[in-house]
Amino acid sequence: MKRTTPGESGLSRIVKVLEAFDKGKSTLTPAEIVRRTGLPSASTYRLVNELIDVGFLDRSDGGVQTGVRLWELASRESKTLSLRNTAMPFMEDLQDAIRQHTQLSVMDGTDILYIERLSETDAVVNITRIAGRLPAVVASPGLIMAAFGTRELQEAVLATGPPKYTKFTPTTTADFHRLLAEFRRQGYARMDGWIDEGVSGLGLPIRNAEGSVIAALSVLVPNDGKSPRMALPAVQIAAAGISRALGWFPKNH
Amino acid sequence: MKRTTPGESGLSRIVKVLEAFDKGKSTLTPAEIVRRTGLPSASTYRLVNELIDVGFLDRSDGGVQTGVRLWELASRESKTLSLRNTAMPFMEDLQDAIRQHTQLSVMDGTDILYIERLSETDAVVNITRIAGRLPAVVASPGLIMAAFGTRELQEAVLATGPPKYTKFTPTTTADFHRLLAEFRRQGYARMDGWIDEGVSGLGLPIRNAEGSVIAALSVLVPNDGKSPRMALPAVQIAAAGISRALGWFPKNH
Repeated sequence: MKRTTPGESGLSRIVKVLEAFDKGKSTLTPAEIVRRTGLPSASTYRLVNELIDVGFLDRSDGGVQTGVRLWELASRESKTLSLRNTAMPFMEDLQDAIRQHTQLSVMDGTDILYIERLSETDAVVNITRIAGRLPAVVASPGLIMAAFGTRELQEAVLATGPPKYTKFTPTTTADFHRLLAEFRRQGYARMDGWIDEGVSGLGLPIRNAEGSVIAALSVLVPNDGKSPRMALPAVQIAAAGISRALGWFPKNH
Repeated sequence: MKRTTPGESGLSRIVKVLEAFDKGKSTLTPAEIVRRTGLPSASTYRLVNELIDVGFLDRSDGGVQTGVRLWELASRESKTLSLRNTAMPFMEDLQDAIRQHTQLSVMDGTDILYIERLSETDAVVNITRIAGRLPAVVASPGLIMAAFGTRELQEAVLATGPPKYTKFTPTTTADFHRLLAEFRRQGYARMDGWIDEGVSGLGLPIRNAEGSVIAALSVLVPNDGKSPRMALPAVQIAAAGISRALGWFPKNH
């Protein structure tokens, strides 16, 4: 879902400047910011200085970077960080057991936004990173959240793709609707080799005290038949543990 | 160091709104934001809606909260998060050995800003939290960064305090200057019972490829004489490991 950016208001210019820091570019010169945003040069230089004054940007070697103060304001009372802190001990235990990739993510529009990831250095291929996003349709956490979402969310998610990455990627909308129903029934999403033939993803729902699915816990393991099957109970226990720590109580079990 | 807030510019109003989320208040109503910021009511209601539109705030039960999109923009190319990701495996290993509190922080003005913390549930008392800040003078990471900082930084840090928390807290500026020199010489700060009589803090410098001290690794352990002494080698190895991962090479050892 696209957010509105009303004309060239002060706020929309601030957002554009911050959005310019992307794809591994952590330091930009004011000239690069002008080029990346397409904003007028003089007012952008002025804005960059104002953003430095309030700590939304910090000076760094060869330019500016997103500010520590911005990170502090975004983090200190953040529900995202609070969820991550609750999940972290369970994720560490899970990572000790799985030793591949353990990830926590939330839904933003039709994207999955990764808010934490623990990895081993020799783990299977992983294209995600913290504060990175992927279309929900290509990731097990996205599919499990869609599976527990409204029909509207499912339609919106499925409308975004997916590309046919491998011979295992499902292609038709009917396939996906059948899979979402299955994922919801079984309580987890499993994607064997859909994105990379060598990798399986398992995605499980995280529930809050009201029982709403607010996040997903996922792992990536080798797509060798036995690894996903062996990992599943550990992921189920960790996901239930996080949900319980958030106040959820499984009334119907 | 106070940041400038020029009059009531659009940017300064945005900063004030975001700063209103503090001290455990993760959800605020627009009326509470008006009260906390002292900004005019009508324009603040309008600004809150604009901030929701761009994702700097999200609607939540009973009000608004800092937005997931703001966290994403502040995090995705953040040097802070990148430092934290480099440090995390070393911090996890250290936490496995120490089982109390393991913390990573950076200096912001004369404050220490905590960017990561790993804790055991039954660990000693700790007043810090992620994205929380403390005057550098009351925390071992702050004192070790001051010890390796300029004379100006040291004066500024010492000018902020410290309060006399316990009978072990040093009081005179001369005491502090002597301690900073000692910390610099020995390569770590040790505060036994300064803040809470039962707690010792150990703070060690993290260096980048140029050898500059850019962050601090610290642990809190029981102030029982042996715990800090036993913890020190592990913290030294972890801090050196993080520095090496950042490209530092100890030429003079």
